[in-house]
Amino acid sequence: MIQLTLDNLENFTRGAAFLGTGGGGDPYIGKLMLKHQLEQGKTIKILSPSEIDDDILVCNVLSMGAPTVFVEKVPNGPATLHALRKAEEIIKKKFDAVMPIEAGGVNATIPLVVSALSGLPVIDADGMGRAFPELQMVTYNVGDCNINPIVAVNDFMETAIFNARNSSSGEWLARAVCVRMGGICQMACYPMTGKQIKETAIHNTIKLSFDIGEKIQDARKNKTDPTDAVIEFMKHSKPTRFGKVLFIGKITDLLRETVNGFTRGKLYLKRLSNEDELLVVFQNEFLYAKLNDKILAMVPDLICAMDNESGEPITTDGLRYGQRIKIVSISVPPVMRSIKALDLFGPKAFGLDFDYVPLENL
Amino acid sequence: MIQLTLDNLENFTRGAAFLGTGGGGDPYIGKLMLKHQLEQGKTIKILSPSEIDDDILVCNVLSMGAPTVFVEKVPNGPATLHALRKAEEIIKKKFDAVMPIEAGGVNATIPLVVSALSGLPVIDADGMGRAFPELQMVTYNVGDCNINPIVAVNDFMETAIFNARNSSSGEWLARAVCVRMGGICQMACYPMTGKQIKETAIHNTIKLSFDIGEKIQDARKNKTDPTDAVIEFMKHSKPTRFGKVLFIGKITDLLRETVNGFTRGKLYLKRLSNEDELLVVFQNEFLYAKLNDKILAMVPDLICAMDNESGEPITTDGLRYGQRIKIVSISVPPVMRSIKALDLFGPKAFGLDFDYVPLENL
Repeated sequence: MIQLTLDNLENFTRGAAFLGTGGGGDPYIGKLMLKHQLEQGKTIKILSPSEIDDDILVCNVLSMGAPTVFVEKVPNGPATLHALRKAEEIIKKKFDAVMPIEAGGVNATIPLVVSALSGLPVIDADGMGRAFPELQMVTYNVGDCNINPIVAVNDFMETAIFNARNSSSGEWLARAVCVRMGGICQMACYPMTGKQIKETAIHNTIKLSFDIGEKIQDARKNKTDPTDAVIEFMKHSKPTRFGKVLFIGKITDLLRETVNGFTRGKLYLKRLSNEDELLVVFQNEFLYAKLNDKILAMVPDLICAMDNESGEPITTDGLRYGQRIKIVSISVPPVMRSIKALDLFGPKAFGLDFDYVPLENL
Repeated sequence: MIQLTLDNLENFTRGAAFLGTGGGGDPYIGKLMLKHQLEQGKTIKILSPSEIDDDILVCNVLSMGAPTVFVEKVPNGPATLHALRKAEEIIKKKFDAVMPIEAGGVNATIPLVVSALSGLPVIDADGMGRAFPELQMVTYNVGDCNINPIVAVNDFMETAIFNARNSSSGEWLARAVCVRMGGICQMACYPMTGKQIKETAIHNTIKLSFDIGEKIQDARKNKTDPTDAVIEFMKHSKPTRFGKVLFIGKITDLLRETVNGFTRGKLYLKRLSNEDELLVVFQNEFLYAKLNDKILAMVPDLICAMDNESGEPITTDGLRYGQRIKIVSISVPPVMRSIKALDLFGPKAFGLDFDYVPLENL
C-alpha cells in the first residue's frame, strides 16, 4: 500500500507526467487538486491488484478532453464523483473502489481526488500503462471488459450517459459531447471486477509514477542526469524496459491546435551543433519521432519530452518555441506489443501508414 | 377522435408537409412508414387534448436530424419505441400516450408509428404548431415543462441519455450525438402531463394536417387552385389565420448543405415575367422570404413552398433547380407571437438581425 503525502505528491505527479508521454494534461493541475485534498486532512488509500479480491467492483474515472483545455478549464472532482454515482445508479450496484484509465498526467490523479472525496480506495492499475488519447485504447479490450455505462458530466452537473455497442463507438459518441461541454468532461466508464483488473489491466503504474518522480528528484539532488536516472531505473523494472535518448535539441517550430476534442500537432527540434531535424507528431500524446527521414520511435512505446537541465517532463500543452529539451523513448512491456494490443493502440490505430517496429530494433 | 386509414393517410402526410414549412423531412417517408403499419392491421388511436385527463403522462417522440439525411437513412420506428422505453426506465413511470413535438413533416408521423408499435394512443397536440429545427423551440417552454430525460437512439440501438440544465443546452448536447449517429437519431424527450399539454401545447394540429391535405385534394378534383383553397380554409380556422401567396416563380438557384446536423441553405426564385428575385433562407425549415430588398415573411409565421400546378408541398430537401413553385405564407396563432414565444422561435432565435414583424403588416 502506497501512502500519498504532501511530501511525495510532487514526485507522483512528475512521474505521471513522464508516463503521460506528452499527454494527460499538465501535472501541475493534478498536483493542485491533490494538494487541496491532502491539506484538508483527507487520506487516500491506494491498493495494489495483489491486495484485492476477485469479486470487488471498480470503476474507471477520468477527465476526457484536450490537454490544452485542461489548463484553463480545470478537471472537476465533484463532477467526477457525480459521474461515478450516476454509473452506480445505472448498474444498480455500489463500487468498492476507483481506478485510473491511464497512468499519465492529470488522469493519473483524478481517481485519487475521487478517492479523497468519497473515501473509496484507488486500485493501482490502469488500462494503458501510459497515456493514450482515446477510450478504446485500453488493455481491458484485450480481454472482454465492457465500457458501458459511459457517464459524462460537466461543471453544470449536466449528464450524458451512453450505452455503446463497443468502446470505439463509445469514444466516437462521447467525444462529440465532450467537445460541446467545452472540450473537457468528467467521466466514469469501464466498470470492472477485481478479477478483470488482475487479468487485463497494467499493474502498479501509480507506484511506478512515484518511483520515476523520485529518481528524477534524486538525480537533481546528486547533480547527476535525471534522464539517465530514469532510463537506468526502467531497465531494472520487471519486465525490463529498454530506454534511450532520441534527441537533444531546441524547439524550432511548433504547430498545435485543439480540434475535435484533441490537442493535435507537430513539434520540430534542431540540434545546436548540426542541421539534423527531429519531428515529433502528437495527438494529445506523442505518437512518433522522426529524425530527418528515419523513424526513431513510435506508439505504443513511450516518447517523452524532458527539460534538458531539470529533467522535468513536458506535456504537449506545455511545449513552447525555444525550449531546450531531450526526447526520450522507453519500451512498453511485452503485453502491450501483442497483435491484439497493437490493433488497439499501434501506429495503424492512429491512422498512421506504417507498421509497428519495437524501439530496440530502430 | 380521428381514425387514420389507408384512404386518408396521404391527406394527413400532405397536410403535415405543409405545416412542416419546408422542414420535418419528406412526407413520402412518413407515409411509407404508416402505410406499412396500417397494412399489417395496426390501428392508431388519436385523442384530442379535450378528451384526456389532467394526470396522464405523455412523452414526445421524434426523429432529430437534417431532413436531407432522413431520405437516405429513414427514421426507425422500433428505435423510437426503444427511446420511449428508456425514458420510462429513467423516470420510473409508464407513459399513457405519445405526442409529436412538431406538427410538420416526418415528425408528425413518428408518434403514429410508435402508437402502432406500442398500442399507446397519440395526443393531437404538439409544441410548435408547425416545424422548427431545434429542441428548445417549443411552446412547452412558454410554460415550464422539463425537457429531461432526452433519450437518443440509433439503428444499432445504442443510446445516449441526457440530463440538461435547460432545453437549449439539451439541444446543443444531443445535436452533437445526432451528427455522430449519422445525422439522424430517434428521440424521446419532454415527458408531460395532460394538464401541461392543455396549458402549453398547440392543440389539434394532427386534425389540421388532415384538413389541409383534404383541401388540397378537393381543389385538385374540382380543378380549383389548391393554394387558394388552403389560404381560404386557414382564414376560417379558430383563431383565424391570415395567409397570402408571396411569390410565383421558378427556382433559379439553390444552395443547400448538410452541416452540424441541419439542412441549411438559400433558395432563389425568379418570376417568368420580370426580373424580381425572391430569396428564401432555410435551416431545415424556411426562415424568411425576401423580395429584392424587402422582407415579405419571417419565422414564426409559416412559409411554405407548393408545386405551382398540383399544390403539393415541397420540403427543403426536395427542392431542385427549375421547379415552378408558389411561396405561400400563413400567420401563426397569437399564442406563438408573444414576447416569450418570439424569444424561443422568432428571427433573433435563429441568429437573424431583424425583429419580428407579423405577416399582415409586411
